[in-house]
Amino acid sequence: MTLLADAPKSTVHSQPKSLEYKVADLNLAEWGRKELMLAEQEMPGLMACREEYGASKPLKGLKIVGSLHMTIQTGVLIETLEILGADVRWCSCNIFSTQDHAAAAIAVGRPEKGGTVSNPRGIPVFAWKGETLEEYWWCTERALDFGNGQGPDQIVDDGGDVTLLIHKGTEFEAAGKVPGADTTDNKEYKVILNLLAKTLKETPKRWTEVGKKVRGVSEETTTGVHRLYEMQKAGTLLFPAINVNDSCTKSKFDNLYGCRHSLIDGLNRATDVMISGKVAVVCGYGDVGKGCCQSLKGQGARVIVTEIDPICALQAAMEGYQVLPLEDTLSYADIYITTTGNYKIITADHMKAMKDKAIVANIGHFDNEVDMAGVEKLEEKGKVKRTNIKPQYDMYTFTETGKSVLILAEGRLMNLGCATGHPSFVMSASFTNQTIAQIELALNNEKYEKKVYVLPKKLDEKVARLHLDKLGVKLTKLTEEQAKYIGVPLDGPYKPDHYRY
Amino acid sequence: MTLLADAPKSTVHSQPKSLEYKVADLNLAEWGRKELMLAEQEMPGLMACREEYGASKPLKGLKIVGSLHMTIQTGVLIETLEILGADVRWCSCNIFSTQDHAAAAIAVGRPEKGGTVSNPRGIPVFAWKGETLEEYWWCTERALDFGNGQGPDQIVDDGGDVTLLIHKGTEFEAAGKVPGADTTDNKEYKVILNLLAKTLKETPKRWTEVGKKVRGVSEETTTGVHRLYEMQKAGTLLFPAINVNDSCTKSKFDNLYGCRHSLIDGLNRATDVMISGKVAVVCGYGDVGKGCCQSLKGQGARVIVTEIDPICALQAAMEGYQVLPLEDTLSYADIYITTTGNYKIITADHMKAMKDKAIVANIGHFDNEVDMAGVEKLEEKGKVKRTNIKPQYDMYTFTETGKSVLILAEGRLMNLGCATGHPSFVMSASFTNQTIAQIELALNNEKYEKKVYVLPKKLDEKVARLHLDKLGVKLTKLTEEQAKYIGVPLDGPYKPDHYRY
Amino acid sequence: MTLLADAPKSTVHSQPKSLEYKVADLNLAEWGRKELMLAEQEMPGLMACREEYGASKPLKGLKIVGSLHMTIQTGVLIETLEILGADVRWCSCNIFSTQDHAAAAIAVGRPEKGGTVSNPRGIPVFAWKGETLEEYWWCTERALDFGNGQGPDQIVDDGGDVTLLIHKGTEFEAAGKVPGADTTDNKEYKVILNLLAKTLKETPKRWTEVGKKVRGVSEETTTGVHRLYEMQKAGTLLFPAINVNDSCTKSKFDNLYGCRHSLIDGLNRATDVMISGKVAVVCGYGDVGKGCCQSLKGQGARVIVTEIDPICALQAAMEGYQVLPLEDTLSYADIYITTTGNYKIITADHMKAMKDKAIVANIGHFDNEVDMAGVEKLEEKGKVKRTNIKPQYDMYTFTETGKSVLILAEGRLMNLGCATGHPSFVMSASFTNQTIAQIELALNNEKYEKKVYVLPKKLDEKVARLHLDKLGVKLTKLTEEQAKYIGVPLDGPYKPDHYRY
Amino acid sequence: MTLLADAPKSTVHSQPKSLEYKVADLNLAEWGRKELMLAEQEMPGLMACREEYGASKPLKGLKIVGSLHMTIQTGVLIETLEILGADVRWCSCNIFSTQDHAAAAIAVGRPEKGGTVSNPRGIPVFAWKGETLEEYWWCTERALDFGNGQGPDQIVDDGGDVTLLIHKGTEFEAAGKVPGADTTDNKEYKVILNLLAKTLKETPKRWTEVGKKVRGVSEETTTGVHRLYEMQKAGTLLFPAINVNDSCTKSKFDNLYGCRHSLIDGLNRATDVMISGKVAVVCGYGDVGKGCCQSLKGQGARVIVTEIDPICALQAAMEGYQVLPLEDTLSYADIYITTTGNYKIITADHMKAMKDKAIVANIGHFDNEVDMAGVEKLEEKGKVKRTNIKPQYDMYTFTETGKSVLILAEGRLMNLGCATGHPSFVMSASFTNQTIAQIELALNNEKYEKKVYVLPKKLDEKVARLHLDKLGVKLTKLTEEQAKYIGVPLDGPYKPDHYRY
Repeated sequence: MTLLADAPKSTVHSQPKSLEYKVADLNLAEWGRKELMLAEQEMPGLMACREEYGASKPLKGLKIVGSLHMTIQTGVLIETLEILGADVRWCSCNIFSTQDHAAAAIAVGRPEKGGTVSNPRGIPVFAWKGETLEEYWWCTERALDFGNGQGPDQIVDDGGDVTLLIHKGTEFEAAGKVPGADTTDNKEYKVILNLLAKTLKETPKRWTEVGKKVRGVSEETTTGVHRLYEMQKAGTLLFPAINVNDSCTKSKFDNLYGCRHSLIDGLNRATDVMISGKVAVVCGYGDVGKGCCQSLKGQGARVIVTEIDPICALQAAMEGYQVLPLEDTLSYADIYITTTGNYKIITADHMKAMKDKAIVANIGHFDNEVDMAGVEKLEEKGKVKRTNIKPQYDMYTFTETGKSVLILAEGRLMNLGCATGHPSFVMSASFTNQTIAQIELALNNEKYEKKVYVLPKKLDEKVARLHLDKLGVKLTKLTEEQAKYIGVPLDGPYKPDHYRY
Repeated sequence: MTLLADAPKSTVHSQPKSLEYKVADLNLAEWGRKELMLAEQEMPGLMACREEYGASKPLKGLKIVGSLHMTIQTGVLIETLEILGADVRWCSCNIFSTQDHAAAAIAVGRPEKGGTVSNPRGIPVFAWKGETLEEYWWCTERALDFGNGQGPDQIVDDGGDVTLLIHKGTEFEAAGKVPGADTTDNKEYKVILNLLAKTLKETPKRWTEVGKKVRGVSEETTTGVHRLYEMQKAGTLLFPAINVNDSCTKSKFDNLYGCRHSLIDGLNRATDVMISGKVAVVCGYGDVGKGCCQSLKGQGARVIVTEIDPICALQAAMEGYQVLPLEDTLSYADIYITTTGNYKIITADHMKAMKDKAIVANIGHFDNEVDMAGVEKLEEKGKVKRTNIKPQYDMYTFTETGKSVLILAEGRLMNLGCATGHPSFVMSASFTNQTIAQIELALNNEKYEKKVYVLPKKLDEKVARLHLDKLGVKLTKLTEEQAKYIGVPLDGPYKPDHYRY
Repeated sequence: MTLLADAPKSTVHSQPKSLEYKVADLNLAEWGRKELMLAEQEMPGLMACREEYGASKPLKGLKIVGSLHMTIQTGVLIETLEILGADVRWCSCNIFSTQDHAAAAIAVGRPEKGGTVSNPRGIPVFAWKGETLEEYWWCTERALDFGNGQGPDQIVDDGGDVTLLIHKGTEFEAAGKVPGADTTDNKEYKVILNLLAKTLKETPKRWTEVGKKVRGVSEETTTGVHRLYEMQKAGTLLFPAINVNDSCTKSKFDNLYGCRHSLIDGLNRATDVMISGKVAVVCGYGDVGKGCCQSLKGQGARVIVTEIDPICALQAAMEGYQVLPLEDTLSYADIYITTTGNYKIITADHMKAMKDKAIVANIGHFDNEVDMAGVEKLEEKGKVKRTNIKPQYDMYTFTETGKSVLILAEGRLMNLGCATGHPSFVMSASFTNQTIAQIELALNNEKYEKKVYVLPKKLDEKVARLHLDKLGVKLTKLTEEQAKYIGVPLDGPYKPDHYRY
Repeated sequence: MTLLADAPKSTVHSQPKSLEYKVADLNLAEWGRKELMLAEQEMPGLMACREEYGASKPLKGLKIVGSLHMTIQTGVLIETLEILGADVRWCSCNIFSTQDHAAAAIAVGRPEKGGTVSNPRGIPVFAWKGETLEEYWWCTERALDFGNGQGPDQIVDDGGDVTLLIHKGTEFEAAGKVPGADTTDNKEYKVILNLLAKTLKETPKRWTEVGKKVRGVSEETTTGVHRLYEMQKAGTLLFPAINVNDSCTKSKFDNLYGCRHSLIDGLNRATDVMISGKVAVVCGYGDVGKGCCQSLKGQGARVIVTEIDPICALQAAMEGYQVLPLEDTLSYADIYITTTGNYKIITADHMKAMKDKAIVANIGHFDNEVDMAGVEKLEEKGKVKRTNIKPQYDMYTFTETGKSVLILAEGRLMNLGCATGHPSFVMSASFTNQTIAQIELALNNEKYEKKVYVLPKKLDEKVARLHLDKLGVKLTKLTEEQAKYIGVPLDGPYKPDHYRY
């Protein structure tokens, strides 16, 4: 049973010979391999895992599927999982975030496996930059098929799309039917419904079986984790989940420092606009928002924050940021960034009222933070005219006012769509958490119920520890009497669980 | 029964007529009252509590003792508790931190009570700047005596000294004897043992009775909270405790922003040394350390961090600070700040190896972060010569090398000893937490067991909310559909409990 | 007389029909035009010049040649000069800095002129990304030929290559011979000598005639200005020169804020390496160095500065940067940036001693700041192996040690080679200076001798003034009595000439 | 001839025995000496001058008067001048800026001179904190009298008051009469006129003689230098002047870094108000303003700038500060700082319109930046009520609105009035310039006409060089070929004269 023949049309090449995969251009593999080689230098946590577990291979015999931006950094994660013994399949979790040279190199495989462009021996990977929604979900389904529809043992998730598909599939299979695509206005959900309708017809219990087999998922986003806790609360969670997002070495690193790096990178590559002297509005002052504010301030922008949470709002004020509702800024701000994980933060009406050529970008989670659906509706009605400047950078002109806004990556994650996402070093921290979580699910599976868990603080500290040498950090060693005085173990963990860092 | 007659000799004036109190100089009351009036402007959270609860008086009939730096800001807290109905007595929790004009104004009382210097009608307060250890514990004992040795209903604690005295007293009363002062090397503990030996003799069950009466304590320091959790773990906690320190609006505000403010204030007032261009070493990168680093960096210092915790160390590195063990910095660093809450962070040996005229200060908790005991031992042996420059600022010269270090506030909290502590606004957040905790203990006492509790997140958010107007912050209002989309109540709390801000 | 037939072989397309030009691909013109339209929004100074002088056309009848990075921003300058009446020809001043879509759009011409890809009607432009040195100087010569070898009336120079060619040509024509290319080791000078030998043979007095005709040059780089002052001192300057570089609105804006923007942009696009937590060494703490340090610090790097000038070194220290000789950093620094305008700042020996995978880039002026010649010599001897990662990003591996360095843009300006150079807004300030200088040379030519001049401060203030609205800046108006009190004219200039801003 | 008997009444003690002087309390000398000893450590430039010139004594036989804030740092300068051979007399240049312990220690003298409180053997100094205007000018006159009205050979000036007195005196002596005090509204000018009327009567040619004798002045403030250039322009300058203010190591260090340090120090000591989260308005973005903005930003304030100069305004915007007219901020800003050197920047009307309890302070030059005269007029009319909070900190309440402003140091320099002024290290740079200028006037007097001169850049670099070791700065050494390549001497100066740093 394969859906491959039904692959939606695309311009990408596909050579499903010995290795099943679909990428944009295998010829990019050499470039990708060089970048992987450089990235390994920047990902000491993953390299340490290879060293520590490369011989014992704790993931041996496990089928692992990943749905996570198919970038160079993810490539180092994928090959780490492989070196630890896993049988891996991969898709991206975002239609724009794939780096095609990374995907190609992963398909061709690690040099020691001897794969070539004409005979790739790497990992089955289904991802290219600029997928349609149909292609995206096709890729997800393909990654989930370890042969005859057989599912994975473990899942590496980012945003929870794999988990979602399995849960929705199971739900509809239990109900014996999938709702019609006309029951929803949400474009993407229509695609999912169509896909599940098809699988229900072809293999009526496919997702139920897949769900039963899964031993656990590790999830790394705020949004994905939120979905998991909701399912736990509702009692519908089908397998254990490790919340990797709330490791300190994830949320306070990737979200904060990663976005500090990649926000301006995305802005620069897309717009080339000078940030210095501009008024920038950052919607949300969580970890992502904090990183974005620092990034913009570091470049000389005047930053205004919008917040719903009084604690975060007060934090923003104490750092010298003005805190205002979006509406108060529309006449004069130059740049808008959404970081909330919520939706309809910037609506079409907001954009219409903005200063001419205001820049709008989302680095939060889904493309509905900026209400692209609303803009598209206006486009359909002829009230908005879209002019593509270059890939992932469009000007939308309101015909009524003649003013335009400039939107990055069609409202999707701008750091992935317009730049190369988070840099290797910070992703090393996140992915070392993912790797450790996968090892934990592999070795201690019996300990986990159908609940959401965070990694023990000691493992969180371990992830940090593996990244210190690279930065030349030298730790101070606690003495025994000091450890006793403050009542912590000599080797950690050093902080109570509720500690906020 | 009163110990007043036994008050250790001191240069301070005492007029125990109608009002029982002991302060440095009642004539400072007018100045203190002006500063209280200005501070009220800066403490919107406390003023909002007065407005919200001033009529219903939820603390009516309750005896509340406070052991907390007797500053202007604390003055606003004390009078807020009084306005909410409480019968209050107060002492400081640090021998150097009292602002004498604040203590005087609190003793004279709020203008509407009509007290004067010759006829004070305020709050019984026992505190002056520069207490000896004997005086300090005498003050604590006095504050705890609401008449004939009767104890308080509730406690406001900072560092846990009141809680400690009651627990130790109860423990020794149960044992029927107090260990001799010669059983310990710790100077302060000797004083406590002497005091308890005296009370055991005079009133054998005093502390046991006091402990039974107490309905709860609210504690606001990392150190004090740590002690409470230890007692909870050991099963020896005598009454419920509310951990105010771990409210986000306390630990991430007072500790962080308060120290960012008061660190350089203390350095400037004590040393007048230019911070710009200097190498400053900050021991510890927790909330206090983070604030100190920002403070020094903002003034143009090059900051080096020491850390034992790999997560905090990595955070420091990601902000651009060099992270080294103390030993690696001794030959060239100019300024040393301890922020750890641990002890023996900077030893006499460290100081001996430092650059001539290195500045050493502690903003952590106790005066043993900088090993003053070790220095004093060397002084006794003639290996160190102390030269007082001005109050709270001493030069210690190592006779062997001829080099000196400059120590602030004798190793005690330099921001309180050399400056005026944290500014009103940030203390308003901390003290609003204290006030809300006291109200909670008053109104919902039955809900609490002999355990340590944190305030519910919604109250934490409330504290933040009360401080927004003053800073001109305008919150964004979540829409109902947005609240539903992210699954939070429209009015908060907006974040999961484990959220790190 | 044309050298066009002799154009060195290259892969670029050339359609010398009605319009003489040579660019990479005219089909990029549409994209270029869109970017020009967006850039105009960000270049208020140039747009104000169009408005103020568009009708009077002060440059009417003047032939102006420009040698300046052929980017989108320069495109807006070129078309401004055209709108002001000039007859313009253009080449780039750097082999890597041309943006091919900008060059194409300039060749096709402003929409109102009705040019198309098949019938371009814009400006003769000779520039493409990735010229060889032979191609570069061929382009320069072509831009200088306004028909039959006739030269320009005025010059817009960046780095002084047009000025150099005219002066060298004149010098050799006076001598009657050009030194053989074998008299120099300098690759580029060989190319110049060959070119001049050719023109001497074909048109013996060409450059002498060109030099006589030129009414003046405006030059915008530190290096170019330095050359001009040297010639003035030596008495060899052939025509007046306006030093645009030392307008405050140039050197303290373009050099400082431009590099603050483009340094990390270049680093990010080339390397994708996380800057946070890294040790970055910035060689030189002039305006460019200051901007680079801010940029790196804003991203969380630990920055070390190298300096020869004690004043700049002290400034760096006062901002909290460590100041060390390069040699002291080689074992641990991650990123090296040269900003000096001097040469041999980072030698091959330095690079060999660096940490593996250290990143080396130059944002100063010429490619000899990083001693590429030295590296190439080692490559020729097999002691260095070059691996191209992607365009403008190479790994050089020292065969002896196995360690590598990663060099951006082959040691040339990394912000132009790896990113898009300085953003429009700051270039608007620089180019408004250029435009005003060109107008000054046009209208008041008789005032200028064969010397180097700076623009009067009032014009400098005017340039600033034209950029305020865009940033929402509202100036305070001096009152008459205040103007009198401090003794300045009501409308400026407000500062003495020696003022340092 | 002495005016001493006519000394205006004051509460300060005066012992004009062997040594003529007038200070607040000689008993403070021991404390002052300790602080001088610590300051010497922080003033490497002055200590290097002592070492270099202590033997040759280039100032031998010269009478030098200084009018410069009588602080600890100035004490190190005074004693340096003495060690270099000068015969020194001193007064302060500001009624609030004297540190009484510094004045006392200077009067008692350097330990090696053996002076004591009962037998002071130091320098004749006339200065105490809190002089009246009459006392201030009395002190100035006294400092100028080296015996029988005989004047100095050289002047160290700060703000130009000594220079002013000599020039005004000479002018009126030439006219044969002094205008009546009723011809001016300016309080201070009245005092000067009265003083000069008195000297004219007693010694009709005193100031003419004094002016003739003076070999030169070195002046260190923007305001004082401005006055000198005005006199040079008007042809009325009586002696050569060295503009020390425009040494880079003065204006870009003292003004910038000094104020960055002392602004918050003054704010903290006076108000104890939290700066974080507040809106602060800085009037003027010159060197002083830039330092103030950094200072406030470093503490988490939101900073708004007011400017009249478009270049400085653009600089402010490019650093992320909002730039607005004062009027636009009155309803919401919390803190106002003037830094302009101009007058009537903040008027009584502005203050009336401010938010209740807004803080107003001046760190520019004279007390008319904040229009104190206007406020006092309202006070006289009963429209403003003044409440003194503590020394140098007053609340002015507008009776009409009930709102108050809090003014520091009565509108005079708040860093000197409320804190201890600039720290030693940065003053070392300024004062080393002063010392070098005095040596230059001593050794090369014949080179100087009655004009204003700046120090040669090489001496400016020397001043910087003397301060590097203290900060651990290691310079890079230019190679000979590099020096030749960029055309500068191997040992500097390294920059052209117009370079802006």
